[in-house]
Amino acid sequence: MIAEILATGEEIRSGALIDSNSSHIAQKLEEAGIRVVRHTCVGDDLNALVSILNEIAKRSDLAVVTGGLGPTADDMTAEAVAKAAVVNLVFDPLALKSVEAFFAARNRKMTDINRKQAMLPEGSKCLSNPVGTAPGFCLTINQCLFFFLPGVPHEMRQMLATSVLPDIFKLLGKNRNFYRVTTISTFGLTESLTAERLYGFESAFANIKLGLRAKFPEIQIKLYASGLNEDDLSARLADATRWVVEKIGNHVFSENGDPMEKVIGGLLRKRNETLAVAESCTGGLISDMITDVPGSSDYFVFSGITYSNQAKEEILRVSSSTIKKYGAVHEQTAKEMAEGVRRICGATYGLSTSGIAGPDGATQDKPVGTVCIGLASPHGATGHRFSFSNYNRLMNKQIFSMMALDTLRRKLVKASS
Amino acid sequence: MIAEILATGEEIRSGALIDSNSSHIAQKLEEAGIRVVRHTCVGDDLNALVSILNEIAKRSDLAVVTGGLGPTADDMTAEAVAKAAVVNLVFDPLALKSVEAFFAARNRKMTDINRKQAMLPEGSKCLSNPVGTAPGFCLTINQCLFFFLPGVPHEMRQMLATSVLPDIFKLLGKNRNFYRVTTISTFGLTESLTAERLYGFESAFANIKLGLRAKFPEIQIKLYASGLNEDDLSARLADATRWVVEKIGNHVFSENGDPMEKVIGGLLRKRNETLAVAESCTGGLISDMITDVPGSSDYFVFSGITYSNQAKEEILRVSSSTIKKYGAVHEQTAKEMAEGVRRICGATYGLSTSGIAGPDGATQDKPVGTVCIGLASPHGATGHRFSFSNYNRLMNKQIFSMMALDTLRRKLVKASS
Repeated sequence: MIAEILATGEEIRSGALIDSNSSHIAQKLEEAGIRVVRHTCVGDDLNALVSILNEIAKRSDLAVVTGGLGPTADDMTAEAVAKAAVVNLVFDPLALKSVEAFFAARNRKMTDINRKQAMLPEGSKCLSNPVGTAPGFCLTINQCLFFFLPGVPHEMRQMLATSVLPDIFKLLGKNRNFYRVTTISTFGLTESLTAERLYGFESAFANIKLGLRAKFPEIQIKLYASGLNEDDLSARLADATRWVVEKIGNHVFSENGDPMEKVIGGLLRKRNETLAVAESCTGGLISDMITDVPGSSDYFVFSGITYSNQAKEEILRVSSSTIKKYGAVHEQTAKEMAEGVRRICGATYGLSTSGIAGPDGATQDKPVGTVCIGLASPHGATGHRFSFSNYNRLMNKQIFSMMALDTLRRKLVKASS
Repeated sequence: MIAEILATGEEIRSGALIDSNSSHIAQKLEEAGIRVVRHTCVGDDLNALVSILNEIAKRSDLAVVTGGLGPTADDMTAEAVAKAAVVNLVFDPLALKSVEAFFAARNRKMTDINRKQAMLPEGSKCLSNPVGTAPGFCLTINQCLFFFLPGVPHEMRQMLATSVLPDIFKLLGKNRNFYRVTTISTFGLTESLTAERLYGFESAFANIKLGLRAKFPEIQIKLYASGLNEDDLSARLADATRWVVEKIGNHVFSENGDPMEKVIGGLLRKRNETLAVAESCTGGLISDMITDVPGSSDYFVFSGITYSNQAKEEILRVSSSTIKKYGAVHEQTAKEMAEGVRRICGATYGLSTSGIAGPDGATQDKPVGTVCIGLASPHGATGHRFSFSNYNRLMNKQIFSMMALDTLRRKLVKASS
């Protein structure tokens, strides 16, 4: 079965927006064992749409199309599909219900232009959209089964998972080839060093494909395997994962793609311990990451974002002589910040950052990319300095935050062992 | 002049990697007034490559192709081009020099497999690559001028800027068309309501194209215009922007695509005022956004992420009777949090959030999506409740943060007028 992906929309065509939908869809289709041969993008232009739909209908078995399902004049996917399939647009009661339900659930009045979204090409099946106004639909044109989904990424993803993939699995039946990816997340080694440590993987696991992906500031190790038997697939991947973890050691923070903040949350929860944070240069990013995890209020008690020295002294009780002697960016200051925030909250751990995210604020001995990290626990406190370079402000905030969380993770893992 | 973009490579085709090259190239070509009609991506497959090259050669005037120029076996762009153009691969001394120069500059020895990169399709012109091993080349096939560039983004960008675009500008000469996009950022209206308010734009500005883009939780209004005269273009876009701002009113927070946190920073800096924040349900996201702006330490003094009631009472000095009487999620609590954080920091403004981001924590009268926002200023404090629904935890954190920042923005704009 050969598949294609089509992204539509002026923003993507003109380059104003990077198309992240097509890679997501490709990944999911490939995981289902379907070969994606081509992605295409065209703008909101009726002729261009009709012509690419006809091309795809001629050469492929399956197509997933995103965008152009909204209520406005530049949303013309349904019209183009009707032209390509040589059918009329007809009123679809289920589509109208999907749009109405969306507005009703939000206590909002449906506007007249949304009625347009209930007009679908004759013969198509409506795919309700539980999270947006635009229903999708599917239709076979010339033996190619097309799925049309909204372009808004979170709507597309949800509908792909709940409507499109189950339909495709049903279609594939017993011939379905299972495909699994294991993601091992690491922090602290470069991509080249990671690759060096994994030398010999291919000969040890001939039927598993290895890939490295830099997902700043992590390096993810991906293991791809496919086969007709799910149990055998899982066993092979488990073997390969053990091999990789042995080579990479404690730079591995998760063996299933979980983000750092979820790993930390799991460790704290298991140990029934709590965390308080004091952030300077990371500006709230650590707290934001930690609280992205549902239920984090069970172990996360407080974070003080102390950009000013005054706040460091008055709220975190860092001694003014420390700041005067060493400055705000120093191991000693970071250590006192961690101790301070731990003490005022009565938390098990206090974690702190102080550094230079840039572009301004650098000094002779503290260039942009310098970060000091403090960690306080019931058994004492430490402060360490790290240097990163060549990153911009936002990337520095990310790698500083990750470094701080990884410091805490190593402490928690050690305490658990 | 009609252009296309082609990205090649297994990682992009299979979805392991998001293609950011095509949007960059599209943007640069459109800015030069060249209409990009289509992007395509295919994998490292010789037949697929030859067939898409032939398709493009038939229908377009210009094409920029990325990827497949490396030294390994899966790099087959040159071979595919030779097949499509029906010419031989020939040794190109300039190409060899470019590869050799790269290794020499890094004191590294060129390996034998890199010699492959000096074999180019007969008749093509080599484009040196100053930042990588893979030289590019250009060649006309069937009246379509193709530029072949490496897939590594920073190499591609540099070669596009220094080799490709200057060639294209020379080609266009006096007929060069300029292209401009204006982005007007709004918050608080749905996409449909925004479209309704902009009804009549097309007839008022026939030569400007209007587009809406949902960039959650913002709605961006995009104005696209092109013309031979740059000044005239700017004047037309300024007129259209005024028209749009009048229709959308104070839901517009930026007329140049600036994010909310930068707008707020600009307003505070101009007024020489400072901000302190107290976040509960937003968990640090507001602070993270604000500190993404370089120089934000000038006006951002402190943020307390008070997930626990104890922290709300002890650090922000919210009265325990308020929390006992109303609960943590309440207008009164939010108001006292804002007052508290403003007072302890001596900031001009205190901004606070307390709500239910989900998936847990909802009560009968406070469903997931409820947020209370407090704002304290030298002239008093207020607390308000808002309800959003059907978003997940991460989206709730985003829309709650945006709502809080927009509340502050409106206050600052009003104070400035």
